[in-house]
Formats: sequence, C-alpha cells, structure tokens
Amino acid sequence: MRIYPDCIPCLLKFTLNAAKKATQDTDLLREISLESLRIILGHGFTAMPPQIAQTINRMIKVKTGINDPYRKDKRERNRLAMQMYPFLKKEIRSAPDPLRAALRVAAGGNRMDSVFLDEDIDVRAAVQKSLAENFAIDHSKELKEAIKTSSTLLFLGDNAGEIVFDKVLIEEIRGLHPQLKVIYGVKGSPIIDDATRDDAAEVGMEEVAEVIANGDDAPGTILTQCSAEMRDLFQRADVVMAKGQGNFETLEEERRGLFFLLQVKCSAIAQHIGAQIGDLVLYRRPGISQKRGGEESTSPHRG
Amino acid sequence: MRIYPDCIPCLLKFTLNAAKKATQDTDLLREISLESLRIILGHGFTAMPPQIAQTINRMIKVKTGINDPYRKDKRERNRLAMQMYPFLKKEIRSAPDPLRAALRVAAGGNRMDSVFLDEDIDVRAAVQKSLAENFAIDHSKELKEAIKTSSTLLFLGDNAGEIVFDKVLIEEIRGLHPQLKVIYGVKGSPIIDDATRDDAAEVGMEEVAEVIANGDDAPGTILTQCSAEMRDLFQRADVVMAKGQGNFETLEEERRGLFFLLQVKCSAIAQHIGAQIGDLVLYRRPGISQKRGGEESTSPHRG
Repeated sequence: MRIYPDCIPCLLKFTLNAAKKATQDTDLLREISLESLRIILGHGFTAMPPQIAQTINRMIKVKTGINDPYRKDKRERNRLAMQMYPFLKKEIRSAPDPLRAALRVAAGGNRMDSVFLDEDIDVRAAVQKSLAENFAIDHSKELKEAIKTSSTLLFLGDNAGEIVFDKVLIEEIRGLHPQLKVIYGVKGSPIIDDATRDDAAEVGMEEVAEVIANGDDAPGTILTQCSAEMRDLFQRADVVMAKGQGNFETLEEERRGLFFLLQVKCSAIAQHIGAQIGDLVLYRRPGISQKRGGEESTSPHRG
Repeated sequence: MRIYPDCIPCLLKFTLNAAKKATQDTDLLREISLESLRIILGHGFTAMPPQIAQTINRMIKVKTGINDPYRKDKRERNRLAMQMYPFLKKEIRSAPDPLRAALRVAAGGNRMDSVFLDEDIDVRAAVQKSLAENFAIDHSKELKEAIKTSSTLLFLGDNAGEIVFDKVLIEEIRGLHPQLKVIYGVKGSPIIDDATRDDAAEVGMEEVAEVIANGDDAPGTILTQCSAEMRDLFQRADVVMAKGQGNFETLEEERRGLFFLLQVKCSAIAQHIGAQIGDLVLYRRPGISQKRGGEESTSPHRG
C-alpha cells in the first residue's frame, strides 16, 4: 500500500514518539523532526509507509546512538501479556469454537499496543470484547480449509506483547493439526515496538513454533530487504498469516495469496481494505496468478 | 512561541483537514501534503506555528481555489452557539460571581471547536463543567483590577461559534463597567475556523463591541502583519485580552502586558505555559519594561 496523505502526520507523530524514547534533547528532537520531513519528501508518494518509517527510525538510531529505544517497554508488555496467558487459555477453551475464539483474541491482541499504553483500560475486558466481536471481513472458513491440507504455516508477527496472543492462537491451531509445522517470523533488528528474537524468547515462542528473524528492520515485511531464508519461506510455506497493519501495508501487493489478521487503526487502512477504524479483520488476499499474468482479485471484500 | 517538534504532526493534520474541506481530489491532496512539508522545512524552527499554518493555508487556497473552506461549518457553529445564548446568560446570572462565571464560560468556549465537531458531546454539560472548573492559572483578580481603571478593552477573538461565549463575557464586563469601550478583533480574511467579520455579524457582536478586522489571515495575531489600525489599538488599549492558543503563540513575546484566556489543548502549549492539557487558563503576561530594557517577567506561573 502506497502512502496516503493521512499517513504523513501519523508517521511524524509515531517517529517523534520513538525519538523521545531515545532522547530528551529538544535541539536534537528538532533536528530529527526536520530530517524526518526531508526523508518523507525524498520518498514522495511512491513508498509504503513502513519503508519511510524504517528510514526515519534508522536516522533516529544514528542521531541518538540508541539502538532499541522501546526495549524496556517491550519487556514490560511481554510480561503483562504473559500474565494474561492463563486467562486467554481459559477463555478460548471454554468458547464454543476455540479456534474461532483464538483468532479473535489474536486479532484483538493487535490493539494491545495502545491498550497497554493506557493504564485505565482493563485488558481482560478488552479481550472479552474481542471475543464477542465479529470480524468485519471474515475469511476464517478459507483459513480453516487452507490449514487442513497444509504442512507448513508461516506466521509473521507484529508487536511485542501482542506476540503472546499469537502464541495462544498457534497452540490452538497445532492442537487441531499436530503435524503442522509453524514458523514464527520476527524482525531482524529493533524497530519501534515490533517483536524481535528477544521478545519471542521472553514469551517462550519456541515452545510452539520455530522462530526466525527476517533479517530486516522495517515495521512490516519488505521481502526484497529480508534474508534469503525468509524470502524462500514466504514463497514455499503452504499458508502465510501476516499480523498487523505494517505487514498489510508491505505485503498486500505480493503475488502469493496470504491471510491478514489485524485491527484497523487508521483511515488509510480503513479506506484501502474496505472496513471501519476499530474493526477486526481476517482477510484472505488471493494469489495473483502468474500464468494468467493477471489478478485473481486484489481488492478486499467484506465477508 | 517558536514551533516545537510536536507542532509539526499537528500542523500537518490540521492543514490536511482544511485541504480536505476544499477538495476530495487525492492527487491534489498529495501535492498539498508535500508542499506543506516543504513549507515547514523552509520555516525551520524559528517561526511561530500560526505563521507556518498561515503559509500552508494560503497555499491550499491557491491550489484548490477555495477561499473559505470552513464557511459552512462556521455558520453552523455560530447558529448552534447562538442557540446556547439564553442558557449561557441564565447560568451566568445565577452564579454567585457572574463575572467569574462568564470568564469560565468564555474560556470553556475555547473548547467549543472540538465540542461542536463531536455530536455525542452535550454542550450544556460541557458549559456546566467549565462553570465548575477552576482556572489552572488564575489572574482574574488582576484582570478585574485592570478593567476597573480602564476606558478601552481590546478583545482578540479566536474561532467561530466560540465568539458567542465571548459576547456574553463582554456583556458581563460592560454591565459592571458601562463606560468601558470594548473593541472586538476578528481576522481580516478566512483562516481555518477563525472568526471573521461574517461571524461577528452572524452572532450580533456589534451590539456589545466595536468590531474590527485585523487585516491579516494568520490563525493568531501577528502584529507586524496586521493593519496599522490594529497595531495602534493593540498598543493604546488599556487592557488587551487575547483568546485561544493561536493568539497566545503569536503574542506572548510582545512587549506590552496582556491577558490570555484559553483552554490548553496540546503538549507544546502545556509545556510552554506551565499547565496541563485540558486546563482552562486566565494568564496575565506582564509587560516587558522598555525603560529597564529587561523583563518584568515573561514566564507564566500558576495562580
């Protein structure tokens, strides 16, 4: 997804927040702000928002000398989310359709980044809200069908903390399909609050999946910048599930079919995917047929 | 007040909203966004936010050909605020200290721009909240003293709609000091949702004050860009009251003493004035003594 005008103030706000995690020096923050404007201007409207965010965040790392400004926050979010683990398991196990419940919980986990930032929000209540919600775009039937006949599932994660909600989903999937090999992809190096190997280790992701780092630090998955191993996995996995807006923005134009699991958090994504801000979405993007040289379908449709 | 890094995403968001009022053409909105980035870069961190907003909004006018994209919204806000007029009068007249109540209502009116945008908010409840609130910085005693010995008061307005709340404050002041001449300053030409002569006419401001347009279209009061008449009035008025953040940002470094009446709406102003976001403030900025060549005091302090 190419950048929308609305993405610009949003990008600047989020990258300024990242810079403030790394430095309180107002002059340096001013310099970073102006450099961010130059970077956005340099990219114009041909780039995807995560590409621009990546360039800005790399610049912030260089200018502040801080490689992982969110490390402490991420650790705390993992810890808080792990405290929720028994509760999540119980809610899912007592649901009429546990896999469906796990999908909703994992999609709801995609809003945990903001939830954990706001101390007033009751996380348990937020989870129960997700459990009661329908997906605005619901391709869960297609997902269930796809998994049935698969031997490998590549799951591309998003944020720290949220990763725990993915873990319970993967456990649910593997409970139904014990032979399925699941590979969980994390970022190759720190970018904002995205999960890296450290976060996967902190929540014990290796217990349920093979964890691989993608070799890049975009807040999404820009395949051309990922390791050969990740690119290969992406093409060869029977099913790919990608979590969150950053992955949607960077992967929705890829040729292979895949599933996106996310909460819609901004007007640009809402417009692009055809849903409302706040909606939970499980969207199957069909593959683009190379034989026909055309598209099966690239436009999301409400289920 | 010079621009803070936090002002940049905010400026871009507000000017993009203004552009969207004028056009729905995505390519044009993209062009406007990039041009806005160039304008901010061009100004750097030496300008006041309203100066940059003025330049961007002038560019939007040129690119879209729409001179007053908020005209319809402003008329509607004036109409809604005038519907509140009898209620405002009743609340103020029944308060133990009507002038104090009118000051709070007028300061609370400064949040009406967002209130009127959100249909779910009960405006009467918002007014009653303002009436019950204390000023976070409260120089009302100093204001009462200053008015007592004055013959002219220059009141610099802010937004459409809000202007009605200023009108009831002016009526209250004039009720106590019938000889006081009040001049109400509006913008010389349209800028976002700021009040112009049209708005003053729509709410009958001439009934209580002499209305003058300041000759400029900054969303604040940049004296060097105002008419000679406004500059002269500003220097000669016995008391100057300036409403809202834009006027604070543009006038707080002026030499003459004046009173600012506003709601703190962002972190930059909160940091600069020494209050919290959401606070109502009646702040007396003392004059800077020319004789001593130094400052009486320019740093706001909580009352």
